[in-house]
Amino acid sequence: MRDITPEEAARHRAKMEKRKAVQDAEVAEKTVEKGLLIVHTGPGKGKSTAAFGLALRVLGHGGRVGVVQFIKGAWQSGERAALESFGERVEWHSMGEGFTWETQDLARDVAAARRAWEKAREMMDNPAFGLVILDEMNIALRYDYLPLDEVVAALAARREGLHVVVTGRNAKPALIEAADLVTEMGLVKHHFKAGVKAQKGIEF
Amino acid sequence: MRDITPEEAARHRAKMEKRKAVQDAEVAEKTVEKGLLIVHTGPGKGKSTAAFGLALRVLGHGGRVGVVQFIKGAWQSGERAALESFGERVEWHSMGEGFTWETQDLARDVAAARRAWEKAREMMDNPAFGLVILDEMNIALRYDYLPLDEVVAALAARREGLHVVVTGRNAKPALIEAADLVTEMGLVKHHFKAGVKAQKGIEF
Repeated sequence: MRDITPEEAARHRAKMEKRKAVQDAEVAEKTVEKGLLIVHTGPGKGKSTAAFGLALRVLGHGGRVGVVQFIKGAWQSGERAALESFGERVEWHSMGEGFTWETQDLARDVAAARRAWEKAREMMDNPAFGLVILDEMNIALRYDYLPLDEVVAALAARREGLHVVVTGRNAKPALIEAADLVTEMGLVKHHFKAGVKAQKGIEF
Repeated sequence: MRDITPEEAARHRAKMEKRKAVQDAEVAEKTVEKGLLIVHTGPGKGKSTAAFGLALRVLGHGGRVGVVQFIKGAWQSGERAALESFGERVEWHSMGEGFTWETQDLARDVAAARRAWEKAREMMDNPAFGLVILDEMNIALRYDYLPLDEVVAALAARREGLHVVVTGRNAKPALIEAADLVTEMGLVKHHFKAGVKAQKGIEF
């Protein structure tokens, strides 16, 4: 065990009392409740994973969650299997046809993105859903598979109380501008560089 | 719908064929399977949330997950309630006594961190677990509530095949050094700045 002198304990207490006062004042200032537009972007891992973690949070409070996967659609993922255990409280649509370098067909990719966006709008309009996840939609926006203006306008005009999470690298500035919360996942270190392959439970 | 000229479609196809070749070569290079030491750090949101998203992934593949919360312990969270629906496949221990500015008692915080670490070691040694999440342990390391050398050595010597995720701001350089995968969650934009309060389903 670590030794703590009475002086150290007193210093710690004084510092933490001050910090608590600041913290309490900050919490008291925040009074608005609203549905958030959340963006997870950046080159690091965890963009989709954090979105599915939020799904867990909403489900834990009794809410319903909609998921549209814009790009990955070909493979069955662990999070999908786990979320399916919540039954009709999770509605999952994989609309993409795999990554774009798999299909190699621009017209097919554009049509798939369009269908995915129509499904997304449908769920956003359905008051049963508390959270809608638009997984990898940033990729579809980046490649102009979807009209940016129309998408941002629809997200900004979402119904009150609805949380939406958009994931994917290279989020468009207009989307970031419209968002309430933007997290950039930065890649500090990656095991792929050390030759470790994609593994069940971690990458899918 | 977007109009696509034949030239544009051909260019797209050529570009994506090249990209697929690069991608396939990269995947073929990676052959190692190992349990990963993963760190989620940085000032942005999503550090714990992405860890719980990984838990979903592991659960979806039939694995078992252990969670030790080092700092938050006082409040019931949505993700905990949702993960409890997986029954004994999730073992959850909230060992902290709330944030440090709530307790204001150094000796109590150090003792709580120590108990949490002992529970973590126990789960890391139990081959039933495929993933162990050490939530907010970086905070305990940062304030020297735990001996850094001992913790890093134990993480580095974890049993083969075990994935461990450590979350929290200000990850220590020695931990980053030992890790396989480190993501820094950067804060681009936060709704708290606009007076929006912590909400069910998003912050807890």
